Amino acid sequence: MINETYEKMLNAKNIIRVLSEFATERGREIGYENVFDYSLGNPSVPAPQAFTDEMTRLLREDDPMKLHGYSPTLGNPLYKEKIAESLNRRFGMDYTAEHIFPTTGAAGAIAHAVRAVTKPGDTVLTFAPFFPEYTPYITGAGLTLRVVPPDTEHFQIDFDALERYLTADVAAVLINTPNNPSGAVYSAETLKRLAEVLDQSSAKFGHRIFLLSDEPYREIVFDGQSQPYVSRFYDHTLSCYSFSKALSLPGERIGYVAVNPACEKAEKIVPMCGQISRGLGHNCPPSIIQIAVAATCDLTSDLSVYETNRDLIYRKLKDLGYRVEKPGGTFYIFPKAMEEDAVAFCEKAKKYDLIFVPADGFGAPGYFRMAYCIDTDKVRRSLDAIERFTKEEYGK
Amino acid sequence: MINETYEKMLNAKNIIRVLSEFATERGREIGYENVFDYSLGNPSVPAPQAFTDEMTRLLREDDPMKLHGYSPTLGNPLYKEKIAESLNRRFGMDYTAEHIFPTTGAAGAIAHAVRAVTKPGDTVLTFAPFFPEYTPYITGAGLTLRVVPPDTEHFQIDFDALERYLTADVAAVLINTPNNPSGAVYSAETLKRLAEVLDQSSAKFGHRIFLLSDEPYREIVFDGQSQPYVSRFYDHTLSCYSFSKALSLPGERIGYVAVNPACEKAEKIVPMCGQISRGLGHNCPPSIIQIAVAATCDLTSDLSVYETNRDLIYRKLKDLGYRVEKPGGTFYIFPKAMEEDAVAFCEKAKKYDLIFVPADGFGAPGYFRMAYCIDTDKVRRSLDAIERFTKEEYGK
Repeated sequence: MINETYEKMLNAKNIIRVLSEFATERGREIGYENVFDYSLGNPSVPAPQAFTDEMTRLLREDDPMKLHGYSPTLGNPLYKEKIAESLNRRFGMDYTAEHIFPTTGAAGAIAHAVRAVTKPGDTVLTFAPFFPEYTPYITGAGLTLRVVPPDTEHFQIDFDALERYLTADVAAVLINTPNNPSGAVYSAETLKRLAEVLDQSSAKFGHRIFLLSDEPYREIVFDGQSQPYVSRFYDHTLSCYSFSKALSLPGERIGYVAVNPACEKAEKIVPMCGQISRGLGHNCPPSIIQIAVAATCDLTSDLSVYETNRDLIYRKLKDLGYRVEKPGGTFYIFPKAMEEDAVAFCEKAKKYDLIFVPADGFGAPGYFRMAYCIDTDKVRRSLDAIERFTKEEYGK
Repeated sequence: MINETYEKMLNAKNIIRVLSEFATERGREIGYENVFDYSLGNPSVPAPQAFTDEMTRLLREDDPMKLHGYSPTLGNPLYKEKIAESLNRRFGMDYTAEHIFPTTGAAGAIAHAVRAVTKPGDTVLTFAPFFPEYTPYITGAGLTLRVVPPDTEHFQIDFDALERYLTADVAAVLINTPNNPSGAVYSAETLKRLAEVLDQSSAKFGHRIFLLSDEPYREIVFDGQSQPYVSRFYDHTLSCYSFSKALSLPGERIGYVAVNPACEKAEKIVPMCGQISRGLGHNCPPSIIQIAVAATCDLTSDLSVYETNRDLIYRKLKDLGYRVEKPGGTFYIFPKAMEEDAVAFCEKAKKYDLIFVPADGFGAPGYFRMAYCIDTDKVRRSLDAIERFTKEEYGK
């Protein structure tokens, strides 16, 4: 018989996908350029030319047997070395290649990292608002995901809530900064305090609580700021990264787990990830992509468009009276809806060809997410629609 | 705490890797060209030039946003259509794109297929000799792998043994033809009888037993023959494929699950694979590789070298008195060792710089595997060493 659990999952609608499909459908009627589709978090700028050039060079010059051959089980050594060097130089870490496990993007990274530092039945905490895929990522490993209520003031961490949720069954805490969907960038102060709380709780419960840091938006931070490197604050951190956003390569599935060298049993965790792969049917990320990213891992696409878009949207929303925190990074903004029911709010917005995602699925009912990884021209044209929608529907 | 199960797995030595590392080490002493390394199943011929050309063209001409963008959850439609068309034309099937689920190679394919048609606690049968990674693939899904003893005459299926092993807890049967490690190609007769037995057992136990067909060597068949297409014989077949071998792209991680359209609940299985991915941290195979393989999926590398090598080795082994079945395909040969303990046999062979893999891990003690995906020149030079080894150690 087919598996009933997965069969039932087919009935659950993914709201983001439903909205995205609506946008595509509407685009067929009025032209997609006229649909203000803020539903999907796909990069809207191309990969750096240097990546394309390096791929082309590899295809022209390299021995195809080596280029397309199996990576060693724990990944291409060149890729691992370059990642370690880059993180060390940029963030003052002391990784070696042995601390880097290449994965097919951040999803693969989290799948490995969480299995390495938990056992089935354990609990993992995360903070609302959170990326909805965390639920299958964590429950798929036989774990329970518990969601700490949000700090709706600044979308940092509500430490009173965290202390209540930190019970003896918590094996790991999963954070995401810069954050999807809030756009918040955890400050050094937040991370310092988080580390203190995790140290205290680890001592209290007699086992080390690990920190899983999901960082695909690490390079998309605005106002000349940067994301304080999470692993600097807490030794027992497994950093989960994807080049999807910074290099605009979401479809090429390339990322890594970086294990802090001072982490408990650090030297075992990457080899254990190799064992975890065998049960998941995961394998190293594509060989040619590992090699090409090794040469370009310090570059990024031109990410400035996201800041331009943020400024335009934030200013308009503030002017219209929305309660909204200014995003410090990512390409998301997370305002409070103009009525309590964000689903109803987003439904009304569709009449103005504005595609917003209600945040119930992100663990923050009453809010909505706009993914502004779209052309700035379209952002500009959408501002009128946002104004008309808000005034006509809510009298603002 | 780190996970004890995976930590313990670190202590288990992978015999193939140990031997391969020995070969590399020995190569440092005497030159790798003088080590007759038959340990690893890596293709020894390059990818077709057409693949390289298509990759280069995509990088030059395609919009990088589309080329490197996310695939839809269930895979790139072009890739799915081309695979379906190709299988239909070559094997008389009637797949549509909806029956094809792109995966990161055959490991990813099996990981999804087996979860789709079982529930944790079920049993999966396979046949000795078998690819040792089946153990973590199957147990990693919370299932039990039971191994049906081999037909050591021709390495087809011992149906008497199969009938004994087919109990009510068996949810699926996993076969691999052409077979790693035996090189056997299941005949139409074998597949027809297997289908009959599975139909009878499904009726007897009141649930459908699915057939998982692992086919990465499908295109490497000798003597002008071809592998009868497994899914033609049994409707309830999920074919698991990888382009690793036929296109010599093992590192690029590209394959698929093809669900027979007549399979029980066929229309649900591919969407369910999409759900399974969420828990595994698997994502579609790399976008550019899907697109390039869509254009080249009917090609193969020049695979003739494997038949040349087989002929040379088979003749020499027969001349020396080995009991050995002539491989119908793959790049493996699977002789009986000259003494009962194949581990001791392979250990002695190392003195002659012959690297053979004892088959205890493949579920067939007393046999050994030679992976002859190496240069024909080296194969020729190895024949003398095989002769000296056999004569000096076993007086043949």
